[in-house]
Amino acid sequence: MILTVTLNTALDLTYGVPELVPHASHRVGDMAERPGGKGLNVARVLSALGHTTVVTGFAGGSTGAVLRELLAQLAPRDTTGTGTRAVAATATPTATPAPAPAPITDALVTIAGNTRRTIAVVDRATGDTTQLNEPGPLVTADEWAALLDRYEELLTGADAVALCGSLPPGVHVGAYAELIRPARAAGIPVLLDTSGEPLRRGIAARPDLIKPNAEELAQLTGSREPLRATRDARRRGAHGVIASLGPDGMLAVTPDGVWRASPPARVLGNPTGAGDSAVAGLLSGLVEGLSWPDRLRRAVALSTATVLSPTAGDFDRAAYEELLPGVDVEEHTTTA
Amino acid sequence: MILTVTLNTALDLTYGVPELVPHASHRVGDMAERPGGKGLNVARVLSALGHTTVVTGFAGGSTGAVLRELLAQLAPRDTTGTGTRAVAATATPTATPAPAPAPITDALVTIAGNTRRTIAVVDRATGDTTQLNEPGPLVTADEWAALLDRYEELLTGADAVALCGSLPPGVHVGAYAELIRPARAAGIPVLLDTSGEPLRRGIAARPDLIKPNAEELAQLTGSREPLRATRDARRRGAHGVIASLGPDGMLAVTPDGVWRASPPARVLGNPTGAGDSAVAGLLSGLVEGLSWPDRLRRAVALSTATVLSPTAGDFDRAAYEELLPGVDVEEHTTTA
Repeated sequence: MILTVTLNTALDLTYGVPELVPHASHRVGDMAERPGGKGLNVARVLSALGHTTVVTGFAGGSTGAVLRELLAQLAPRDTTGTGTRAVAATATPTATPAPAPAPITDALVTIAGNTRRTIAVVDRATGDTTQLNEPGPLVTADEWAALLDRYEELLTGADAVALCGSLPPGVHVGAYAELIRPARAAGIPVLLDTSGEPLRRGIAARPDLIKPNAEELAQLTGSREPLRATRDARRRGAHGVIASLGPDGMLAVTPDGVWRASPPARVLGNPTGAGDSAVAGLLSGLVEGLSWPDRLRRAVALSTATVLSPTAGDFDRAAYEELLPGVDVEEHTTTA
Repeated sequence: MILTVTLNTALDLTYGVPELVPHASHRVGDMAERPGGKGLNVARVLSALGHTTVVTGFAGGSTGAVLRELLAQLAPRDTTGTGTRAVAATATPTATPAPAPAPITDALVTIAGNTRRTIAVVDRATGDTTQLNEPGPLVTADEWAALLDRYEELLTGADAVALCGSLPPGVHVGAYAELIRPARAAGIPVLLDTSGEPLRRGIAARPDLIKPNAEELAQLTGSREPLRATRDARRRGAHGVIASLGPDGMLAVTPDGVWRASPPARVLGNPTGAGDSAVAGLLSGLVEGLSWPDRLRRAVALSTATVLSPTAGDFDRAAYEELLPGVDVEEHTTTA
């Protein structure tokens, strides 16, 4: 089982409009509602790849209730079914039928506050997206303590852990360090995917992996030179750093070596969720015992197939399978 | 009791952002959530003016449940209380204490679909608003029949009726005509505040009053000359037409005469809800037996005080009381 932690879950709304014009009134043409927050997105991709996943974090209020209802519909716990309700990652017809998604178990901690909404306003003419993110509910000290208890219980059954996204108001900035330590103590690989001060503080607890993008890496290290910044991030405490370089692929600086992985071609599309798909690729590869080059190949192919998907945050399975063998992985001869 | 009908109720969200930049990501700084749809806004102002109000229309799903919860908090049915929870229209301290709001009774019909959300994104620097409106739930034929039954029951206790806003998907375009006829037959004054085809069809059933703005009037009649367009709207079936001319006030063409009402000064602010406040002013004045000039004075003062309020859709009570005696009402000597 892979455990994903999303402290600031969200009900993600997508609104299609012909064109977003500031200060005008818009009738929303089409809309979608789905359970969100980075760790939930990672779980959805892991499920589509056949990995049993447990999600924890916080959910509350009426939006939290809707989020949990949608989460329950996403990957039914009864895996003997056809999986037809879990269309998220399997909507594109492929020659080889997609495997039924593995179950996603809801182990979210209920809080008094209302789970936030995020709204992606998509210009249907251009595909450009304008994002509006509510800040999230205030989490109390008791709720944080309940999350820590739940997390330590869940760790006992976990093969790997992903800690994902921003912190809601009320959760202290060193929260991720507090979650990394027990995982490390239990020998469970832990990946941290966040930014800013929570990333800086989290790294000090020595996570196995971080997966910053170029902007997050520059914020952390002050350097925009990928190899230098990635090495600097390792010196700060992360055992392995997988820097995502957007359309250029990924740079991995690990205790086992340094690799650069590039997609077969640059693609156009919506990058929303591409980073979460990469996290799912890296963690599933780790749990399956794949080599670093194969893990990177999967992460790059999944994230490129997510950019190509018409639905933000889903991946196009046919594209993924086609892209996978074409991802170029080159080992750097310099030491990490 | 005044009855307001809102077929397409909404959960109104207001998001404050420093500046709305298309295709960028925004962290929402401040947010508010309130029960909306034109008839609910009218009820809120009527309640603040001391008029007992019953609201009907449709509500459903998780957003409908939140809307009803917020509606219940707005004006507690226990009027022996201090009314401190119903801060909507009484937030501004005044020399003369505001009266406790009169009760608003929830007589909404529950439907299977999810009540729509509307999102007002306010640039906190300029105050400019960008509006995103979900289309609303699909209403079934059975749900429409249930609304008709509920409406006819409620009519027996009503002194006046306001029919407000857009029609949700599934409700036939002649719906307002179907609601106007039984009110007219029972001799209960009925005001219709909608636009487009639902307005055109509604007028044919001869409502006592319509309250179009210049744009709606031009759409209906093809004329942008206010007096000509207003007279044309009367010929189409409306007994009285109160055209709202934005910052210039109102033009009333009624069986009793023609008046023009102007605010003491042009004001800057957010016009959201100004029309709903005007409807509340007109209906409360009618029920209280005020003369046409006094009804118009109240409508113009309320709608100007709504533009001045820092919260969209509320009115500033101190401003209302100060503006009221200064509204200029001039009778036209031409016949209606």
